[in-house]
Amino acid sequence: MQKLLKANDAIADEIRGALKDKKIFFVNLMSSPGSGKTTLIEETVKKLGKKIKVIEGDIQTTLDAERLQKLGVQAYQINTGPFGGDCHLEAAWIRTAINELGVDGMELLFVENIGNLVCPAEFDVGAHLNVLLISVTEGEDKPLKYPLAFQVSQLCVITKTDLLPLKHFSLEKLRQNIKKVNPDCAIIEVSAHEGTGVERWIEVLKNRPGI
Amino acid sequence: MQKLLKANDAIADEIRGALKDKKIFFVNLMSSPGSGKTTLIEETVKKLGKKIKVIEGDIQTTLDAERLQKLGVQAYQINTGPFGGDCHLEAAWIRTAINELGVDGMELLFVENIGNLVCPAEFDVGAHLNVLLISVTEGEDKPLKYPLAFQVSQLCVITKTDLLPLKHFSLEKLRQNIKKVNPDCAIIEVSAHEGTGVERWIEVLKNRPGI
Repeated sequence: MQKLLKANDAIADEIRGALKDKKIFFVNLMSSPGSGKTTLIEETVKKLGKKIKVIEGDIQTTLDAERLQKLGVQAYQINTGPFGGDCHLEAAWIRTAINELGVDGMELLFVENIGNLVCPAEFDVGAHLNVLLISVTEGEDKPLKYPLAFQVSQLCVITKTDLLPLKHFSLEKLRQNIKKVNPDCAIIEVSAHEGTGVERWIEVLKNRPGI
Repeated sequence: MQKLLKANDAIADEIRGALKDKKIFFVNLMSSPGSGKTTLIEETVKKLGKKIKVIEGDIQTTLDAERLQKLGVQAYQINTGPFGGDCHLEAAWIRTAINELGVDGMELLFVENIGNLVCPAEFDVGAHLNVLLISVTEGEDKPLKYPLAFQVSQLCVITKTDLLPLKHFSLEKLRQNIKKVNPDCAIIEVSAHEGTGVERWIEVLKNRPGI
């Protein structure tokens, strides 16, 4: 396992360097299933246009890639397999996907990682910015229960704020718990459906932290 | 991997048989993080009393076990580890946990599996009933994207129905997608916070399917 991770990290560093040289900003989105990764990418494409390409990670189906292709975005789908399927993406697969997509005309690359808070955090995919999405309906205790996912992320996006206020949920406590496991993690709040907070997200992407 | 799974299945069968002999009904709860597994167990304890024991699976923290212990329930916490952590529970760990909990006075055993829709589906823990919880905020496409988790389950509990109606979500489509990947899966809808549907859930537990 340690050997596998070391090999993965070397490829990830190679990807990070090569994309930086080409001035392509690479963002890795991680979250539970249904936290709003695809929706956030859709909103980003609407605001920033088509110099975006996307690598979609899913156990099965090409549903998310199809959603993005409808917006005219080039999306490459990685399916991790028939038997339950790998719960993460590896740097080597990302390298292949980038080669297939081609770097021409690309300024921003998203990876939408497999939807869970465990395995994706263990595998560096070579991104300049790791983003953890958590929706307000997932509960305020998740940073404490899945700390690694929050620790490897430089930005945490709290999604679905249009559903607030919710019984038995405190946004303030969620923020505190994020800071408890990763004091350096920036936090923004977004409702993609209502457009609230999307501008701050776009601003982060324009600033290109980590590149 | 196949060898590991075969060994796991043998232990799972042993657990299933031993608990059946002792008339202990064993239910495995699987879901994404924050779909409401602990809350559903809490409501069950309030209705059915203390002949329930619980094995809690988490990467880190004993938060869920503590919630249940507050209700006077014996709960055993399995933490799968410091480095990201295993994303599933194995039958061997369940066997140890049952030994630690003791079978005396137990009529119903819950396992709250690690919160994700990928790995727990691959490992039989020896339950008589596998239950998949999905909250209405996770989106209607999840059965198609994580089919194995739905296919190994005999019952699907749709949670957080108090949040309905939601934009961009059709309960009917979610039900259709569940039936598409597993036509035999029974479906019930629950709002644990409002109490709606909890009686049907209790009825299922009283019927003890699979034992």
